[in-house]
Amino acid sequence: MSVHVTVWNEDCAAESKEEVLAVYPRGVLGAVAAIFEGQPEFEVRTAWLSQEEAGLTEEVLDDTDVLLWWGHCKHSRVPDEIVTRVQQRVLRGMGLLVLHSGHESKIMQRLLGTQCSLRWHENKDKERIFVIEPAHPIMRGVPAWFELEAEEMYGERFDIPAPDALLAIGWYESGDVFRSACCFNMGYGKIVYFQPGPETLRSYYNPNVQLILRNAARWAARDRALDRPLHSEFAPSLEEKR
Amino acid sequence: MSVHVTVWNEDCAAESKEEVLAVYPRGVLGAVAAIFEGQPEFEVRTAWLSQEEAGLTEEVLDDTDVLLWWGHCKHSRVPDEIVTRVQQRVLRGMGLLVLHSGHESKIMQRLLGTQCSLRWHENKDKERIFVIEPAHPIMRGVPAWFELEAEEMYGERFDIPAPDALLAIGWYESGDVFRSACCFNMGYGKIVYFQPGPETLRSYYNPNVQLILRNAARWAARDRALDRPLHSEFAPSLEEKR
Amino acid sequence: MSVHVTVWNEDCAAESKEEVLAVYPRGVLGAVAAIFEGQPEFEVRTAWLSQEEAGLTEEVLDDTDVLLWWGHCKHSRVPDEIVTRVQQRVLRGMGLLVLHSGHESKIMQRLLGTQCSLRWHENKDKERIFVIEPAHPIMRGVPAWFELEAEEMYGERFDIPAPDALLAIGWYESGDVFRSACCFNMGYGKIVYFQPGPETLRSYYNPNVQLILRNAARWAARDRALDRPLHSEFAPSLEEKR
Amino acid sequence: MSVHVTVWNEDCAAESKEEVLAVYPRGVLGAVAAIFEGQPEFEVRTAWLSQEEAGLTEEVLDDTDVLLWWGHCKHSRVPDEIVTRVQQRVLRGMGLLVLHSGHESKIMQRLLGTQCSLRWHENKDKERIFVIEPAHPIMRGVPAWFELEAEEMYGERFDIPAPDALLAIGWYESGDVFRSACCFNMGYGKIVYFQPGPETLRSYYNPNVQLILRNAARWAARDRALDRPLHSEFAPSLEEKR
Repeated sequence: MSVHVTVWNEDCAAESKEEVLAVYPRGVLGAVAAIFEGQPEFEVRTAWLSQEEAGLTEEVLDDTDVLLWWGHCKHSRVPDEIVTRVQQRVLRGMGLLVLHSGHESKIMQRLLGTQCSLRWHENKDKERIFVIEPAHPIMRGVPAWFELEAEEMYGERFDIPAPDALLAIGWYESGDVFRSACCFNMGYGKIVYFQPGPETLRSYYNPNVQLILRNAARWAARDRALDRPLHSEFAPSLEEKR
Repeated sequence: MSVHVTVWNEDCAAESKEEVLAVYPRGVLGAVAAIFEGQPEFEVRTAWLSQEEAGLTEEVLDDTDVLLWWGHCKHSRVPDEIVTRVQQRVLRGMGLLVLHSGHESKIMQRLLGTQCSLRWHENKDKERIFVIEPAHPIMRGVPAWFELEAEEMYGERFDIPAPDALLAIGWYESGDVFRSACCFNMGYGKIVYFQPGPETLRSYYNPNVQLILRNAARWAARDRALDRPLHSEFAPSLEEKR
Repeated sequence: MSVHVTVWNEDCAAESKEEVLAVYPRGVLGAVAAIFEGQPEFEVRTAWLSQEEAGLTEEVLDDTDVLLWWGHCKHSRVPDEIVTRVQQRVLRGMGLLVLHSGHESKIMQRLLGTQCSLRWHENKDKERIFVIEPAHPIMRGVPAWFELEAEEMYGERFDIPAPDALLAIGWYESGDVFRSACCFNMGYGKIVYFQPGPETLRSYYNPNVQLILRNAARWAARDRALDRPLHSEFAPSLEEKR
Repeated sequence: MSVHVTVWNEDCAAESKEEVLAVYPRGVLGAVAAIFEGQPEFEVRTAWLSQEEAGLTEEVLDDTDVLLWWGHCKHSRVPDEIVTRVQQRVLRGMGLLVLHSGHESKIMQRLLGTQCSLRWHENKDKERIFVIEPAHPIMRGVPAWFELEAEEMYGERFDIPAPDALLAIGWYESGDVFRSACCFNMGYGKIVYFQPGPETLRSYYNPNVQLILRNAARWAARDRALDRPLHSEFAPSLEEKR
């Protein structure tokens, strides 16, 4: 049974700036979607902010096992009720992969409870990503480290709760480090944050970035059989009172 | 330097029901405050929902190292801006001890990102609390286990992220178990959830419950020297570009 | 590709006591093996202490993706070099499922570094196991809780490092609780401890126990492609010295 | 009540090489001890390998709240029974701070269960240490990051179990990263690994390194009141059988 992937972006291709299209002809949205397209184990759809209900209708989410989220300048335009809807879906089991500047999206802050703030600059720094948990399914097939020729620097301290698994740490030529791949379990859902991916650099063409995203989608995909209520409930005594 | 404790409740003594006052003559608010009163290392104040700004003005929070939160029926009446204010304070370092039915308070859900739901019943069950991390400062002086003659049953699954430290597990005669004491680190702040304490039972008179709350307040009290910004910031390169 | 399971026991069927054979005609060894037999996704072999090299030759381990370990009275007879060999295999990626009284086996203590001690009695207590992480692959398909009519009581405090994932907590009619299913990641390997299974009680016939063991074997099975050295190594500079 | 600190080294001053004494006139042993000397809250003693029982008699350990361990070339000469003795003390509550090349000491491997291997080179690299958990007591007063002008490179992957708290990550000009400060809770004891400190470089003169070591000693110091047995024990039923 294939994993149903919904790739979300604040911009569709038509809305993307020229300098983005120069790097990713279908925009970041299309570049991320392409990582899953043509792979029999994935069924991909795209969604974006300017669509009705930000592209994330109940129907779309009903059919989504894992949602990828890329946003940057338009975080504040995502309606709060959509954030609540996505949060509820994650808690009920939908996977969520938050990409790059999505670290300060409303949905990331809502789920993690912290600011998710960090230190940053754009200087096309070389980054080297070191695998910390080589046996984790998300790191399957990834070498001990790999390089990205030019990245936006995201540096510590990254204001997140200690992740349930720290998968990778990035080194930057600018003198910084970053917890570049992190997992969080929440409710019945799984969340992965993965740092690479500014809109005018080429990281989504990197085969290791692609491999990690495919592995992460497989790992975080919801268990469709899991369908227990997530509200408090009265529970009769399991044992007789003495 | 004493720890400044603010004990918050949805009700002050005057607002408390008769059956509550029968057990705790100063209400739950007063019962929790009494745990810290007369101890030179603590300076205690109380605050409650019907006060201006829910009793949690910026001034009060400026002077609070650790906030204790007890609420039950009036969670929804706590204004969202107060929840946001408390959340921001926790992220900046203020300790937060969430008590009993506070598990579904807005502030708990806001910080943890999950529903914090559970299974429950009121049947005056005997509970036995087992210490899981005896070397944690919060468990200092607490025996391997202790009993509460009558408690409200809070049972698993408790919908929280895996805590940074699981301090205690409760056994109930009704046949249930519960992660009854949990710690979470968020931002610069520390959060403790501790399960005992319904308003008409006597758990806040239990010396081990009292010891744990005092230990927890000491452990979670903010480091006043810690005052670094918690928003993303531009960071010049630490190393020269090659 | 099937998962190669090696089920190890301190006794083979022929060495098992009569009261064990009365419950498990092929001994505990056979009872655990039966959980994997006839399942196309698993290939099962058995091994036991009185065999040459305790049944765990390099050849056997070469062909083992996950090892199940059940021991009780004969922990001290397992040769230290076999313990070292198994430890090294786990660190290189082999999965290890430690069952019941295996909690104090040399291999468990060696890997976890603690005593793995606990409180216990044999009184055929009813146990009820509550799932704490329903979305973990090992708990897939397991109900919110299930009961074992008669178990040996293993009670907290269980002297283990905080597990990387706490999957289940057990309630006992004797008034005790236990972290009954725990995961640990070590080196490239995955370790699962699962509490049920004394030799004269019937827990290995329980369908949920069986399901958990099959799920755990699948989860912990080594990634055969992962074959990086696990010793410290000289590493030339990745960047030129300035 | 002062914290009783025992600083252990494989060499005493008289045994130290000339190039070490050129940097640290009292050897590494004396340099580490000096961090605690003259501080009223600490009482310091030193111990070293060539002493009887490696300097770690039962009497010395009886009087030790926290033990600092620095070794490099002579790991294999530490007698196994001393390693076992120290392990038992840690499990009963004694703090252990493992320094620099102590990462592959027998006691570190014994307690953590992994190889504790890493990648390394000696090239007097600049290191920059970033604080990951600024609110942890061990990081109290430490700036967001600090630099060591020349360090031995210790690089990932560091083969340790995921620490209970990851306090700091190091950046190296050689292009590497390292989890440079990690905490582990084991038994009733607390373990801290801290990476800086080769014998011919000057890191133990760095005020932040010194501050972290003092904070760590305070944090890890045993609770003398904690004295519960750490072996499995028969436990009568806490509740009557029905």
